[in-house]
Amino acid sequence: MRLAIEQARIAEENGDVPIGAVIVGENRIIGKAYNQREQLQDPTAHAEIIALTQAAAALENWHLNGCTIYVTLEPCPMCAGALVLARIDRLVYGCDDPKAGACKSLYNIVQDERLNHRLEVTSGVLVEQCSKLLRDFFSQRRVKNAQ
Amino acid sequence: MRLAIEQARIAEENGDVPIGAVIVGENRIIGKAYNQREQLQDPTAHAEIIALTQAAAALENWHLNGCTIYVTLEPCPMCAGALVLARIDRLVYGCDDPKAGACKSLYNIVQDERLNHRLEVTSGVLVEQCSKLLRDFFSQRRVKNAQ
Repeated sequence: MRLAIEQARIAEENGDVPIGAVIVGENRIIGKAYNQREQLQDPTAHAEIIALTQAAAALENWHLNGCTIYVTLEPCPMCAGALVLARIDRLVYGCDDPKAGACKSLYNIVQDERLNHRLEVTSGVLVEQCSKLLRDFFSQRRVKNAQ
Repeated sequence: MRLAIEQARIAEENGDVPIGAVIVGENRIIGKAYNQREQLQDPTAHAEIIALTQAAAALENWHLNGCTIYVTLEPCPMCAGALVLARIDRLVYGCDDPKAGACKSLYNIVQDERLNHRLEVTSGVLVEQCSKLLRDFFSQRRVKNAQ
């Protein structure tokens, strides 16, 4: 999760909402990414989506069974859906997202028995550091917008 | 939708489940893609995700307000979430997906009032052609697997 937080800081430096993700598989890091929505002007460029693409490329296989993803924020519907599609085993995340979270807050897509895969979920890891990053980012943005 | 069906046929030629998507904005086609999950070995490479990335690149802007996406199959949670994130105006799709559809069947992510954007949805367009493509693909695959 510390590495995911480092990734989130890179997003922040680029003017993007600070969210980072790391994927571990076969005892090594196979995906490491940060939110690049503004930088790439791509609505799908969330940290998790980029990390999943990297991880599948590293394994040369879209089935990510046996892998764990670490994310600083509770994934949104797009990213939660992607985690299920990738058949990833485990999701570890930092803080909840009451506005758009899809792994507990608004939906629980990653543990929906109607879908063909479910993940083990651990939340609240390094929660204070993960949420402070976001709080600081949005409060600085509010100050900038008010100027 | 006819163009989306043409895209779906390309997916099929590549051994991928035949699903195609087209995005129209500013009175022109700004995204056109087919499912490439197997071809790219990328779990996120659904037709909609690729088309959204193309469309945002064409407009040099991730806000796709004013655009319409045509898809042959009801989008899954990942793709439905991506449509909301992209702030696209309208979704037109062919056949429902009772197993993983997230715009009517299992969820209705694209019209969830808790999220910060909602889409207008039209379903059942060229439904017979869209569903026949999928039926034929899966029945051929069953025959191959049985051999």
